Amino acid sequence: MTLRIIATGGTFDKHYDEIAGKLSFAASHLPQVIQRSRITAEIALEELPLLDSLDMKDADRSRVLASCSQAKEEAIVIIHGTDTMRETAEVLGNAALAKTIVVTGAMIPYAVANSDALFNFGFACGVAQALPHGVYVAMNGKIFAWDKVQKNRVAGRFEPI
Amino acid sequence: MTLRIIATGGTFDKHYDEIAGKLSFAASHLPQVIQRSRITAEIALEELPLLDSLDMKDADRSRVLASCSQAKEEAIVIIHGTDTMRETAEVLGNAALAKTIVVTGAMIPYAVANSDALFNFGFACGVAQALPHGVYVAMNGKIFAWDKVQKNRVAGRFEPI
Amino acid sequence: MTLRIIATGGTFDKHYDEIAGKLSFAASHLPQVIQRSRITAEIALEELPLLDSLDMKDADRSRVLASCSQAKEEAIVIIHGTDTMRETAEVLGNAALAKTIVVTGAMIPYAVANSDALFNFGFACGVAQALPHGVYVAMNGKIFAWDKVQKNRVAGRFEPI
Amino acid sequence: MTLRIIATGGTFDKHYDEIAGKLSFAASHLPQVIQRSRITAEIALEELPLLDSLDMKDADRSRVLASCSQAKEEAIVIIHGTDTMRETAEVLGNAALAKTIVVTGAMIPYAVANSDALFNFGFACGVAQALPHGVYVAMNGKIFAWDKVQKNRVAGRFEPI
Repeated sequence: MTLRIIATGGTFDKHYDEIAGKLSFAASHLPQVIQRSRITAEIALEELPLLDSLDMKDADRSRVLASCSQAKEEAIVIIHGTDTMRETAEVLGNAALAKTIVVTGAMIPYAVANSDALFNFGFACGVAQALPHGVYVAMNGKIFAWDKVQKNRVAGRFEPI
Repeated sequence: MTLRIIATGGTFDKHYDEIAGKLSFAASHLPQVIQRSRITAEIALEELPLLDSLDMKDADRSRVLASCSQAKEEAIVIIHGTDTMRETAEVLGNAALAKTIVVTGAMIPYAVANSDALFNFGFACGVAQALPHGVYVAMNGKIFAWDKVQKNRVAGRFEPI
Repeated sequence: MTLRIIATGGTFDKHYDEIAGKLSFAASHLPQVIQRSRITAEIALEELPLLDSLDMKDADRSRVLASCSQAKEEAIVIIHGTDTMRETAEVLGNAALAKTIVVTGAMIPYAVANSDALFNFGFACGVAQALPHGVYVAMNGKIFAWDKVQKNRVAGRFEPI
Repeated sequence: MTLRIIATGGTFDKHYDEIAGKLSFAASHLPQVIQRSRITAEIALEELPLLDSLDMKDADRSRVLASCSQAKEEAIVIIHGTDTMRETAEVLGNAALAKTIVVTGAMIPYAVANSDALFNFGFACGVAQALPHGVYVAMNGKIFAWDKVQKNRVAGRFEPI
């Protein structure tokens, strides 16, 4: 089964810029993440402009939907910022594509010690190949239907509604 | 959904013993793996004696089966050495328990740079919550039915048969 | 020889706050840095309030000087932000204490992948035990007298003047 | 000041071979160690055949001495296995070269979590630029004259004699 990975940014892919002294975006880490994970399943990696999800506009979410629609793969994992993961999942859910789409991200950047990024990415890749068509959010080791999840900003985790 | 994680050893949980100058087993890394993954799903962690799977005897595999049978959880992830992962999966598959059991491991220890361990663990945790009852092997970003997989020792990956 | 390590903050000790989504300060990483480095030399670790060196005022630099003056150790390593490392080194240099004081820090936080922090810390610990009394800045694998160094902010490195 | 780094192997440079399932040698890690340490001092890196120091013969130690003699640099850091670090330091010490030579290594491979390798490398690079001519062993955050050190194998650390 071919799996499409769509990188859209978020905390997962943040990069420490040592000249500016802050976290920002540079090249996506997904190529090296896929390689060190030793994935032999066929992977199509698509890198959209990397954005903090608080900066995403309707046009950005539409672009994610377009990528999903045009994908020949039925199983898709989207790496996305956690703050508006729900909003993008809603756009995708409403489109009701004949695909299994799993949106995930990270609370701590892949490049930072003790990150949840790699666990979440693995979790989402497994879920995308196992569940029937639909749109899901996968965070904190849990699977949520796109319309039954919210981010608890104070606790820093996703919860069912 | 409560997930049971059963640690049985394997390359995943190897530890570098600096006095002996070689890799062996000490305490399992699973407690810290679960914590850094920020898993909010209910987890029951069971640590069996950590073994290299080449050293596993019938009694060791029976012990894994007993743990699965006695588990109140329906979703189980087993961390296991890759060399005889198939053999243990066969014992579990033949028992035909009313559970979703996913066996995984790693080609590179969790404690070594660029390990596939955390990806595999995340992948298996997702699959265990998504698939119907059965026994599966999850390695290299792929899901295999327990009786349709073999390890390609030369290439260091799992392939379908 | 007893070595005093004085933690004052800086990029070295930055911590990713996943709730706020940014880098800030929490507990110093120095205890775990010292432990994983397997240092058997006697170490006295002193943690001052952790500050970004751009936020340091005269009172903060005086506090570092006071710690150095009152230290019973002759060899001191100071972990400090790079942006005003020179300014603090000047305060210490002008005090002309009968001690070997080495100021170091990092361009990339210890907690971020591919950090220079641990190399710099090791380098400074070696220099502090090897050089005669004086105040030095140790960055980029180079030793600078306190009054002969400046930070090249564009290139992100320290250079001699 | 130009610094010569001579890689001879040892635990420091061990590599996990996932096909064989054990630690062995592959390419040295020193190029990436030097790069991530952001060293701006001039570095000459010389890679000798990587050996476990228990496997070193007189000819291997002579080769290290030859590299030191022929080096145009006055400051040299040698990465070496810890088990017979003393023996090689003795060969170098007896040669009484007009150079500052610091021998270091690691109890835990650079590629393994919580390694002392990077701290030791930084420490040695500092010491090599700070001390007068002579041969030294630098381990556990301590500097030893070549003829005043032994490895305590039980405790896994170097001690003065």
